Amino acid sequence: MLGSAMSVSSGVSSIRRVAIFGGTHGNELTGVFLVKHWLKHAGEIARSGMEVRPFITNPNAVEKCVRYVDTDLNRVFDNQGLGLQNKVKIPYEITRAQEINSIFGPKGSKDAYDVILDLHNTTSKMGATLILEDSNDDFTIQMFHYIQKSMAPVHCSVLLIEHPKVKYATTRSIAKHPVGIEVGPQPQGVIRADILEKMRRIIIYALDFMQQFNEGSEFPPCSIEVFKVLEKTAYPRNENGELTAIIHENLQDQDWRALNPGDPMFITMDGKVIPYEGEHTVYPTFVNEAAYYEKNEAFVKTQKMTLSAQSVQCKSL
Amino acid sequence: MLGSAMSVSSGVSSIRRVAIFGGTHGNELTGVFLVKHWLKHAGEIARSGMEVRPFITNPNAVEKCVRYVDTDLNRVFDNQGLGLQNKVKIPYEITRAQEINSIFGPKGSKDAYDVILDLHNTTSKMGATLILEDSNDDFTIQMFHYIQKSMAPVHCSVLLIEHPKVKYATTRSIAKHPVGIEVGPQPQGVIRADILEKMRRIIIYALDFMQQFNEGSEFPPCSIEVFKVLEKTAYPRNENGELTAIIHENLQDQDWRALNPGDPMFITMDGKVIPYEGEHTVYPTFVNEAAYYEKNEAFVKTQKMTLSAQSVQCKSL
Repeated sequence: MLGSAMSVSSGVSSIRRVAIFGGTHGNELTGVFLVKHWLKHAGEIARSGMEVRPFITNPNAVEKCVRYVDTDLNRVFDNQGLGLQNKVKIPYEITRAQEINSIFGPKGSKDAYDVILDLHNTTSKMGATLILEDSNDDFTIQMFHYIQKSMAPVHCSVLLIEHPKVKYATTRSIAKHPVGIEVGPQPQGVIRADILEKMRRIIIYALDFMQQFNEGSEFPPCSIEVFKVLEKTAYPRNENGELTAIIHENLQDQDWRALNPGDPMFITMDGKVIPYEGEHTVYPTFVNEAAYYEKNEAFVKTQKMTLSAQSVQCKSL
Repeated sequence: MLGSAMSVSSGVSSIRRVAIFGGTHGNELTGVFLVKHWLKHAGEIARSGMEVRPFITNPNAVEKCVRYVDTDLNRVFDNQGLGLQNKVKIPYEITRAQEINSIFGPKGSKDAYDVILDLHNTTSKMGATLILEDSNDDFTIQMFHYIQKSMAPVHCSVLLIEHPKVKYATTRSIAKHPVGIEVGPQPQGVIRADILEKMRRIIIYALDFMQQFNEGSEFPPCSIEVFKVLEKTAYPRNENGELTAIIHENLQDQDWRALNPGDPMFITMDGKVIPYEGEHTVYPTFVNEAAYYEKNEAFVKTQKMTLSAQSVQCKSL
């Protein structure tokens, strides 16, 4: 509908406060290195009229080079975690989540930061991935569209985690526009120059977009391809909870590629193939992510769809 | 010299007791999975006339999916570790090393197991690697030659860790013929089907070789290419111990390839390239191994050489 597509998305003021989170998972080193670097040398991320604040979210986990100390920081930014009172021994990450919420939030309030760029790595072959939490967030969709164009020919996939059961309460969710940046494959506890360069460019382009937006540029209506989370797929396990099969070689490293009914999915230690028995083609991602063994997720099934955004232009010039 | 080359290597009796160690590092999952599988289904590794014993060496680290609990099990099989008395609180892995030594050793004695195959993974792109501890161990060199031929066209590199300063007291060193098997790249805490298949084939061929040896086959003189450890290369660090540079993109994933004087080695966060300034070409390996950050090893320099072995034939038929 032309009229709707041409209307300017409402409610987006200028972007004044941006945070860059590294070390939300302490063994995902690219964000840790970039944030630590920018804490000392801010020139690369400085933008006039914007506060851009690099921040290590889970310093204790970074210190130990582990994902987390007591519990996953990237799952506790809900009412339960943020509201937990000091009656029992509170896990470190819950205390830390409340601190982060008080600095960059409160979540859902007008005082919350405008944008949080939260930096992650995965052991999956997902390449450069942008994570969207809200399919109605035209501003962020426009930002992702800008980043995709700027990164070409390097492809940036977009994962939409808007799902009533599968969505989780991320650290970045306290911002008005939460942005997850996930680049892989990179083993936990390793820093690769190629992965670092990709993530660094994504952040620079995100800041460039916000700067151009603040300066009054109008971004016309656009569409992007997104992979929307459908459900998680568990590993086959025996009665003792031990894995009885592993990701099949044909599925390994095939993030974002079609998995069709009948395609190999797992293989047992005896060589028996377990095929995908769903009715529809799906697009797996987070295939064989190290951190998801304990969450019992072999991969995440997504569906491919197109998301449109209205034009955006800063309303408070 | 023909006469020498044709002589039969002495001192090798039939191989009666073989151990397969998995989980020496609890987050290197291929060995953990294979050993756990064979503990329940021994058919694949059973060989007549040989005891072949699969064994989880560090069960507490496996349980937690970490490299070790208190200290690196693969560095403590020396007189100090094996002789430590119960006067102070002894680290878990020291106690465990003493148990392992009592079961499969004692190290250096006639009662020690004949062969220990110790299964490891690396985050480095080393492919299928066999680790040799003694350049005079003709039996093991012949075994590696047999495995290399059997694995073709998949290449198996051989790393020789015989070096007065760089050699370490491995778990497998209690055997008469210690064999390290190191397959990568695989992130810690991840199990990949392709890596598992390679390691599994190496073990099967190793057992086949031992069986043929026990049955009287003569293995004629042979030569293999080996990469001998020269020295470790540390990361550049600042006064606080923080890394100031990371592996350069040109060196990443280039294990076993020539590093020539002047070639890029590290890159700083500001983009400054630090070249290799040695005088001679070296062959890096364990490039960007996750577990070696804490040991401050960015990679290991090796030199390429040829090692010859006399023919071997079982003397106790």
